[in-house]
Amino acid sequence: MPHAAPGQVVDVGPLGVELKQEATVALFKGDDLEVMRVVLQAGKSLPPHKVPGEITIHCLEGAVDITSEATSHVLRAGQLLYLRGHALHGVTALQDCSALVTIALKPKE
Amino acid sequence: MPHAAPGQVVDVGPLGVELKQEATVALFKGDDLEVMRVVLQAGKSLPPHKVPGEITIHCLEGAVDITSEATSHVLRAGQLLYLRGHALHGVTALQDCSALVTIALKPKE
Repeated sequence: MPHAAPGQVVDVGPLGVELKQEATVALFKGDDLEVMRVVLQAGKSLPPHKVPGEITIHCLEGAVDITSEATSHVLRAGQLLYLRGHALHGVTALQDCSALVTIALKPKE
Repeated sequence: MPHAAPGQVVDVGPLGVELKQEATVALFKGDDLEVMRVVLQAGKSLPPHKVPGEITIHCLEGAVDITSEATSHVLRAGQLLYLRGHALHGVTALQDCSALVTIALKPKE
């Protein structure tokens, strides 16, 4: 999927029955923001990682555990959290899930 | 509503029947990102405005017209777009709607 341009409408609704066949995609990368839709099947994990800028994680469907700074947070469809820049976080899908991840590309110095 | 802290789970699902009684709320303002849920009743508008950083607008329910640079974009539930920093944009609710707006606070110089 090509990256979206400014003003281009992107579908980010739940994938539903197609979730099993979908992979993580980058939706766009601008000057200040990058947005991707992360797809993770139940039981799969992303090992702890971090980025310089703040991020939001918005669960679109399913359920996902976000563990950061020794605390676990369960995100279900329709829930969002944000993490500070440089916050190490691990991600484990509790159910097949997709989530929008928005990353600030120009973090505070 | 107090602002969310990092790692705090925030419900951003559709408001449904409560939409008529809700107002726009700031969900949090961090170092790099600010997120608000904008609620707009059918026919209401926000006059053209702009912010220095890039923004994403994610329609959670209803339908909203975003006009920027002489082009109209209709966003429906489950659709998202982004706009460049300093992009003048007007917003008109085509139906009662709510949308997540994410603003990059540290735009590219």
